[in-house]
Amino acid sequence: MPLSSDFASTLHAIFGDALALNAATRAAYAYDNSRREALPEAVVMPTEHAQVEALVRACRAQRVPLTARGRGTNTTGASVPVAGGVVVSFERMNRILRVDPDNRLAVVEPGVLNGELQSAVAPHGFFWPPDPTSAPFSTVGGNLACNAGGPRTVKYGASRDNVLALRAVAGNGASFRAGAPITKGATGYDLVRLLVGSEGTLALITEATLKLVPKPSALRTLRATFADVGAAARAVARIMAQPVTPCALEFLDDEALKLARAHGGEAVPEAGALLMIEVDGEPDQLDAAVDAVTRAARGDGLLELRAAADAEEAKTLWAARKALSPALRTLSPDKINEDVVVPVGRVPELVAATRRLAEKFALPIVCFGHAGNGNLHVNLLPRDAAERARAEPCLAEVFDTVIALDGTLSGEHGIGLAKRAFMPRALDPGALALMGAIKRQFDPEGILNPGKLLP
Amino acid sequence: MPLSSDFASTLHAIFGDALALNAATRAAYAYDNSRREALPEAVVMPTEHAQVEALVRACRAQRVPLTARGRGTNTTGASVPVAGGVVVSFERMNRILRVDPDNRLAVVEPGVLNGELQSAVAPHGFFWPPDPTSAPFSTVGGNLACNAGGPRTVKYGASRDNVLALRAVAGNGASFRAGAPITKGATGYDLVRLLVGSEGTLALITEATLKLVPKPSALRTLRATFADVGAAARAVARIMAQPVTPCALEFLDDEALKLARAHGGEAVPEAGALLMIEVDGEPDQLDAAVDAVTRAARGDGLLELRAAADAEEAKTLWAARKALSPALRTLSPDKINEDVVVPVGRVPELVAATRRLAEKFALPIVCFGHAGNGNLHVNLLPRDAAERARAEPCLAEVFDTVIALDGTLSGEHGIGLAKRAFMPRALDPGALALMGAIKRQFDPEGILNPGKLLP
Ligand SMILES: Cc1cc2nc3c(=O)[nH]c(=O)nc-3n(C[C@H](O)[C@H](O)[C@H](O)COP(=O)(O)OP(=O)(O)OC[C@H]3O[C@@H](n4cnc5c(N)ncnc54)[C@H](O)[C@@H]3O)c2cc1C
Ligand SMILES: Cc1cc2nc3c(=O)[nH]c(=O)nc-3n(C[C@H](O)[C@H](O)[C@H](O)COP(=O)(O)OP(=O)(O)OC[C@H]3O[C@@H](n4cnc5c(N)ncnc54)[C@H](O)[C@@H]3O)c2cc1C
Repeated sequence: MPLSSDFASTLHAIFGDALALNAATRAAYAYDNSRREALPEAVVMPTEHAQVEALVRACRAQRVPLTARGRGTNTTGASVPVAGGVVVSFERMNRILRVDPDNRLAVVEPGVLNGELQSAVAPHGFFWPPDPTSAPFSTVGGNLACNAGGPRTVKYGASRDNVLALRAVAGNGASFRAGAPITKGATGYDLVRLLVGSEGTLALITEATLKLVPKPSALRTLRATFADVGAAARAVARIMAQPVTPCALEFLDDEALKLARAHGGEAVPEAGALLMIEVDGEPDQLDAAVDAVTRAARGDGLLELRAAADAEEAKTLWAARKALSPALRTLSPDKINEDVVVPVGRVPELVAATRRLAEKFALPIVCFGHAGNGNLHVNLLPRDAAERARAEPCLAEVFDTVIALDGTLSGEHGIGLAKRAFMPRALDPGALALMGAIKRQFDPEGILNPGKLLP
Repeated sequence: MPLSSDFASTLHAIFGDALALNAATRAAYAYDNSRREALPEAVVMPTEHAQVEALVRACRAQRVPLTARGRGTNTTGASVPVAGGVVVSFERMNRILRVDPDNRLAVVEPGVLNGELQSAVAPHGFFWPPDPTSAPFSTVGGNLACNAGGPRTVKYGASRDNVLALRAVAGNGASFRAGAPITKGATGYDLVRLLVGSEGTLALITEATLKLVPKPSALRTLRATFADVGAAARAVARIMAQPVTPCALEFLDDEALKLARAHGGEAVPEAGALLMIEVDGEPDQLDAAVDAVTRAARGDGLLELRAAADAEEAKTLWAARKALSPALRTLSPDKINEDVVVPVGRVPELVAATRRLAEKFALPIVCFGHAGNGNLHVNLLPRDAAERARAEPCLAEVFDTVIALDGTLSGEHGIGLAKRAFMPRALDPGALALMGAIKRQFDPEGILNPGKLLP
């Protein structure tokens, strides 16, 4: 439905030049990394909180759908405006308002890129833990809204674990601040963590106070190969059961290794499974830390464990993982990458189940990902139309398997459009009903990102 | 209002012998550690989830107030049944259902004591981070409901950071499970962390899946004295800005030291401020870790830094802190201990403000607490009726000061009855309104712990 001219005037009064109604701009904000697409009627680019508040109130009054957008890098359709209406892009709310080393925090607007933030805090000796591969081109607001993570999550937590306070506008038009610039609190309900992962369906985040972590000055890289996935998973459990937590604990199954080797050549080892392990720390503690992790990695089924002597060798060890992404794209431009999670101890069962499904649906499937959190990227790799058609029912069985293994639909990419239909399989009806009730309180007219997250 | 005989029969049908209506039992469940008191009409002691669900439904149908109780150790009146009705004590739901070292988790009923849990997981090399001083006699359910913490929070987080999944019954009678036995997730709204810290006002927790952490095998204790509070706070900021986070970073101001010395004698040093620092780790890394913390502790205003050579000396170093609690009680049996939080960098301003208030209200005030989180226990110590009368307005000014310093009302003890009236000073009206809206969704009749937390 096109916007009324009255409503367009209201938007113009709020945004002036920062309102776009032309087809080219609308088209540019119609899609995200999910390959889904839907045209908005208007795109606005606020530079301050008051504009966001005025926008939400105007949309609420006229029941106009409103979809927040960072940089559209999410993979689930979460920022596609499927109901039309207005896209609010936070790209111009991109100021780092404060870096406060004494209190280990930074205050930022939501449009700041993750990578920009890291550059701003690094000179103070800090980093912000969430490290999605998309860090150079995804926003803090998008990271928070999706609860984005990355390899470092295993040691330092995901977005939800690294935010202290938020300023936001709920779908009912009310501005609020939640949390405080402190690392501990027992003052009422935790609205901060409720907004994290809510994918712009409850409120629009206009400012975030982020927890910074001191950056260890040294890093050591290890690569371990195993006879089979079970042996690798047992090593992961042993590593996670001792006090030196690695800052990356990445896994590749044998299918992923075969593919990476076909693409990346001899540098990629042949094995039943591979773990890439990074240990960070201060130089004078790192040897002992690496020893502890090495001891834990050793056990039945270990084929080889190599520690990189220097940065050059570390790069070589990472070759398998680096070769994988282009290999996947080459094999299947339509690859479906699902970031499911299972308890660490059940990773072998999940990988075994994907083998059976690969056979049943005659479809290549590879598994890799953040083993320390049991967060696997199960990649379905259809190569033609027939395989593409079989991918969908296969995916449903992947999700059912994950849920039967006590896992969940998403570790870090979120639900968006892509997994929305599966929510009733993953969540208890009681929990889903409470989520719906919360949604209706924050956003009584259902204007915020309609069609996403909740079924 | 006494219970109707119909309702009493309903309770009897659900609980049999685990229902008490007699005066003695009711009196025993009328109070908590807040010195407040109110008689319930009945006390029930469920042994399983189904009973809790039936109980909530019965109470909802009859609009009977229902207050959850762990062991009543909270300090804010949170478990006092001020509206009468039923107290549900979880003391018999005290089974540890599963310890799962491979997945670093334990599944427990809510009535398990924190200390019992620690004993059960220690043989596996793990601990559960929340370490309130009350650990031997407070429950996991109470810890979660209050977001309890302790010294270790500075490194390992509080209750909210160490829970993976919950089973619960909302005030509307609906049972639900939230979260999963995994350490990472982006599947819908975070109901788990919403329940943590909600003090039994949204739902009754009947099962918790807790995150376990591998226990470092060695610990080193340091004591640092400073010329003044500012110097100690700057040392805290330096310690927290480097990558080796201590597992305790406790603070005493000069007034606390004077009192401790009067009670504990020569072993307590004279200084403007004191920090107790504990560093944990593996034996072969600990020297380097202690060095890093020591380097960070050194700076302008440091008077003396002592590292304990052994457990015996560590005990001596802790003498000041240990002497403090009995000293406080001796001076003022009616002491008011408020666990406020401010950003670490503002601790000196808070302590200076308490000095001014101590003078203004002619009332002893001492400050100590968890410096790494800026979580200070501000203790007002009235010694007679006149001082007791002045304590209340003084307290209000303490809270106003804390809020002006960007802090919050409670770090770990919660709100309960004690701080409820101050919530509008601490929280934004928009945030409070959303909390109220959430409360009404979970508990439409307002039966769960009425009169607590929200103003
Ligand atoms: C190559 C590539 C690699 C990736 N690697 C990772 C990875 O390793 N780990 C990982 O977790 N993810 C990864 N992602 C996914 C994606 O980058 C993240 O989900 C990221 O957080 C999205 O940020 P964005 O700024 O692009 O947000 P968008 O995609 O624009 O939006 C994402 C969601 O956030 C909402 N939103 C955005 N801003 C706000 C706001 N201010 N207030 C409220 N809601 C808001 C949107 O409405 C939408 O629901 C990857 C994506 C790509 C393309
Ligand atoms: C000597 C002493 C030292 C202390 N030290 C600390 C400390 O260092 N750090 C700290 O954080 N606290 C401390 N406390 C406070 C207190 O011990 C904690 O708040 C503790 O978590 C309360 O646990 P409990 O089992 O006694 O719960 P209770 O006091 O019985 O209840 C506390 C709250 O939890 C709710 N509740 C209990 N069980 C459930 C359930 N199953 N579902 C839903 N709600 C429930 C109650 O309704 C109430 O609102 C201390 C208290 C004392 C007396």
